[in-house]
Amino acid sequence: MREFELLSAIFAKNDRLGSEVVIPPGDDMGMVRLRSGAEILVGVDQVVEGRHFESGRYSWGRIGRKAVARSLSDVAAMSAKPIACTSTAILPAGFEDDDAKELAEGMRLCGEAFGCPLIGGDVASGEKGALVVCTVTVLAEPGGSGRVVTRSGGKVGDGVYVSGVLGGGWRTEHHLEFEPRIDFALKILDRLGDRLHAMIDISDGLGRDLDHIAACSGTGAEIEAARVPVRSGFGLAHAMGDGEDYELCFAVDEEADVPSELAGVPITRMGQLTALKGEKRTVVRNQDGGLSDASQMGWEHCG
Amino acid sequence: MREFELLSAIFAKNDRLGSEVVIPPGDDMGMVRLRSGAEILVGVDQVVEGRHFESGRYSWGRIGRKAVARSLSDVAAMSAKPIACTSTAILPAGFEDDDAKELAEGMRLCGEAFGCPLIGGDVASGEKGALVVCTVTVLAEPGGSGRVVTRSGGKVGDGVYVSGVLGGGWRTEHHLEFEPRIDFALKILDRLGDRLHAMIDISDGLGRDLDHIAACSGTGAEIEAARVPVRSGFGLAHAMGDGEDYELCFAVDEEADVPSELAGVPITRMGQLTALKGEKRTVVRNQDGGLSDASQMGWEHCG
Repeated sequence: MREFELLSAIFAKNDRLGSEVVIPPGDDMGMVRLRSGAEILVGVDQVVEGRHFESGRYSWGRIGRKAVARSLSDVAAMSAKPIACTSTAILPAGFEDDDAKELAEGMRLCGEAFGCPLIGGDVASGEKGALVVCTVTVLAEPGGSGRVVTRSGGKVGDGVYVSGVLGGGWRTEHHLEFEPRIDFALKILDRLGDRLHAMIDISDGLGRDLDHIAACSGTGAEIEAARVPVRSGFGLAHAMGDGEDYELCFAVDEEADVPSELAGVPITRMGQLTALKGEKRTVVRNQDGGLSDASQMGWEHCG
Repeated sequence: MREFELLSAIFAKNDRLGSEVVIPPGDDMGMVRLRSGAEILVGVDQVVEGRHFESGRYSWGRIGRKAVARSLSDVAAMSAKPIACTSTAILPAGFEDDDAKELAEGMRLCGEAFGCPLIGGDVASGEKGALVVCTVTVLAEPGGSGRVVTRSGGKVGDGVYVSGVLGGGWRTEHHLEFEPRIDFALKILDRLGDRLHAMIDISDGLGRDLDHIAACSGTGAEIEAARVPVRSGFGLAHAMGDGEDYELCFAVDEEADVPSELAGVPITRMGQLTALKGEKRTVVRNQDGGLSDASQMGWEHCG
């Protein structure tokens, strides 16, 4: 069973959650309402040696940064504001203390840079030779409008947009150095308001992640191959499936006036959400006019 | 370097945290203030195969329960009310889907039973033969009084109390079946108010955990061996050092009238916080009148 199916099976009990759960499991973050009426978002992500970073290739400080930045990208995907984070690490027996401190310092500095202080953690030792695993949980709250953006608000006819360029995230150092799109996400929500219907961050690959929007919104999605903004040096297949781009893919009311750039980040319209028909939910229209299933174009973390 | 020292080194940068961080790292949970003024607590804990449960001995559902209950014990230690939790798991390649679902179901049911719905998660696969690791992050808010109880509020002369009985937590199935003392903790805070100065849950062993209260409060601590409430079938050494009791140890103003039982849980006075003198911060007075250093009586998770 693949990661997404397993999580779906686990989260199938969502109907038993109480009314204080405003956004149930299955989105980039969950959201609960406190007794005071304030709403708070929480999301968790893991970074696993050999899967999210190659052993021995990068400094532990950069890996700590990535662990926190990945969780901050989930905050961006909700158009929320980060509050604080916690982290855990499993470190193999014999892991150097200086490396552990550098890992933690990378986490701390990244949180600090995005107004998301590290306020708790736990360290456990694994067996000798075990893989390093870091978990980061991030808390966030809605921005000024009080609204956050989920995966499930897309409507048939919505334009499908993406920030920045795609492809090669994992094949370059982009996956270590990317800027979580928090500022962009708050500004695009300010600008578009209720016309911004749905959003996700692209961590698994454009095909898979856009398919999550379509699945959660009950629509199809069609993008044009020629319109996908591709990172210099990479082709369309990379842009569709490499993963680790940490850009935002979003669905906007067809009537809305979407800028071509915001907060210094280019915005590209790639296609639209469609009525659901046939077996292919999320497709790419190739330059010869043919349609390819895009829903599996991506990177399965747990294969 | 041991776990506690490593975390201390990491958290030594707490002075750089902003004023929104009401309780910095180093307590059972951290706490931040939201823009609305509401305060929220967050804590994280890990459960590692071979360290917190023996491989192949218990059902995965019970292990999932324990992972969530451990984090709920941290909520009790702050006298807070749980809101929601998230979890992650690293599962070795070849881990059965049914086992994964049972693990998740154990987590979900335990959260539900304590008003703490599971609202997000992540699953990653480790290499074949890797140890199972579950991480649970829990959110909480202050109870009705708006106050929570930290490790650091103890004062010289305070009485030192404990809920329930101690010893053998790890050697029996108590470590799987314990009841997080959330209800008790809210009631004891209601009852004692500001006279309840400091609290911790006993996960590492009475000696080590009481020493955290003393260290954070800038006091010493002295308990009498004969007064430690010992679980039937276990001796003092077990009560001091076994760990995994998940009872609450707390320091109360010497003038306060502390009941001998609350919410069905016995309460025992074991000693008091003392002025710090000499090298031994936390000591046990033995029946012959001699003093033993208790600060290392406990269970080092990462050794």
